[in-house]
Amino acid sequence: MPTLWLDIEYEGTEFKGWARQPGLRTVQGELESALATILGEEVTLSVAGRTDAGVHAWGQVASLTIASPPPPDLARRVNAVGPDDVAVTAASPVRAGFDARRDALSRTYCYRVLARGSPSPFERERALWWPHPIDRDALAACATAIVGSHDFTAFTPTQTEHMRFERNVLRAEWVERARAEQEGGIICFWIEADAFMRNMVRILVGTMLDVAGGRRTVSAFTRLLEGAPREEAGETAPPHGLHLASVSY
Amino acid sequence: MPTLWLDIEYEGTEFKGWARQPGLRTVQGELESALATILGEEVTLSVAGRTDAGVHAWGQVASLTIASPPPPDLARRVNAVGPDDVAVTAASPVRAGFDARRDALSRTYCYRVLARGSPSPFERERALWWPHPIDRDALAACATAIVGSHDFTAFTPTQTEHMRFERNVLRAEWVERARAEQEGGIICFWIEADAFMRNMVRILVGTMLDVAGGRRTVSAFTRLLEGAPREEAGETAPPHGLHLASVSY
Repeated sequence: MPTLWLDIEYEGTEFKGWARQPGLRTVQGELESALATILGEEVTLSVAGRTDAGVHAWGQVASLTIASPPPPDLARRVNAVGPDDVAVTAASPVRAGFDARRDALSRTYCYRVLARGSPSPFERERALWWPHPIDRDALAACATAIVGSHDFTAFTPTQTEHMRFERNVLRAEWVERARAEQEGGIICFWIEADAFMRNMVRILVGTMLDVAGGRRTVSAFTRLLEGAPREEAGETAPPHGLHLASVSY
Repeated sequence: MPTLWLDIEYEGTEFKGWARQPGLRTVQGELESALATILGEEVTLSVAGRTDAGVHAWGQVASLTIASPPPPDLARRVNAVGPDDVAVTAASPVRAGFDARRDALSRTYCYRVLARGSPSPFERERALWWPHPIDRDALAACATAIVGSHDFTAFTPTQTEHMRFERNVLRAEWVERARAEQEGGIICFWIEADAFMRNMVRILVGTMLDVAGGRRTVSAFTRLLEGAPREEAGETAPPHGLHLASVSY
C-alpha cells in the first residue's frame, strides 16, 4: 500500500475552501476527483492545513495511501486533468503511515496587506487593500506579543469545534518588502504555530489593524492573549489576503 | 485648460488591449468613460505604450487636457466608478502641452516566464509557463546582443504600420529572482528602448526561448538583428507574460 506526499498550490478564489462538501467546488473535491481519474481508484486526502473559502495556499501538504504503485509522472498527469487554479507541484513516495495532518509539526501562514492609497488590479484577490494610516511600530509590537504560548479564545468564533484554546506561536512578524517586480506597498504578517484555530490568523490581523489605526492600544491587544472572549477582539479580516505558506515536518 | 498626468496599472486579461474600439472592452474605453463620469466632460487619453489584448501594465502613463480644474481626489473617484482590473494610482497636474506618448523618452517592459515543471495557479495569467530545459547562459548572451541600435524587422509582423524598423535598446537582460513571498521559478526578460514595434518583445522572447532550448544558436539569433525578415525569427510568445513596467520622461 504505497503512501504519497503531495505538495500543492492553489488560488482559493473560486473554491469553497479545502474540505470536500457535497455539491460545492472545493480543493479536496477537485483533487480527489483528478487523482481517482489517474489512479483508477477512489482516494481520500489527509491535509496539513484545512483552509476556508477564498484562502490561498503556496505550500499545502496532503497525503494519501493507495492500492497500487502510482505512475512516475503522477503530478503532471493530475495537473493535466485537474482545473488550473490548483496544482500538484510534487508527488513523492513517503514512509508507510505518514499522515500530512497528524505528522505536521507546524504551519506557517502569510496574510498580505496592500498598504497604499490606490487599489491594485494585481492584488484584488491576494491582498487586503488597506488605504488607511498604519502605525508600523504598533504592528511590530503586537506581533512580538503574539509569540509564545497563549490562550487564543478571543481569536476564534465562539461557536467553535475546538476543545482547548492554547496555541504555541513560534514566529510572528510583519514583513515589508517590494514585490518581486513591482515597487512596494505590500506588508505581510507571517505567523508560524504548532496549530491554528478557525479564523485565528484573520481575527489576529483584523485586531492588529485596529491597533495600527490607533483605535486600540498595544497593551489592550496583549491582554486579549490571556483568554479574553471573542467579542473583545476585532473583526475577522477577509479571506483573500490569507495564504498557507508552508508546513514543517 | 489643465493638463493631467495619470499613472495607471491594469491586469490585461479581460481587456481587448489599450486602444478604444467600438463594442470592445478596452482599457482606454473604460478609463475615458470613468473620467467622463467624474469630470462631466468627454476626454481623450494619450498613452505612452499601447498594449495588446492580454498584456498587463504596472506603470502605464497617460495624459489628458480638460476644460475645468479636476477635483483633488480624482484618482480615488475614478477608481470608485471604474472596474477593478484597472486603477489610476496617481493623477497630477502637469505643464500645458505635456503629452504622455510624444514626450516619453523610453519604455520598459518585463516578460515573465515560469520556469519549472509544474504550472502555478498564481501565475496562470501573468507568466508564460515553460516546463522545458532553459540554457540561462544562452539567454544572457541573446540579451547582450539585443542592446544597442538594431534593425528589428524580424521581430514585428510583416503587415505592419511601421515605417522604420530601427530601434535603440538601452537595456536588455534576463533576471531571475524569488517572488516576494514564494520561492523562485520566475525569470524575467527586462527590456528598455526608445520605442517598440508591435509584438516586438513577444517575438524576441519567443525566439530567445528557441535558443534557450538548443533549437537555434546565439549567433543565428544575433544575425536576426540585422534586418532579417519576420519568417526567420521564432514564434510570438503569448501576451499574458508581458507587462509594461515603466515609462521614462
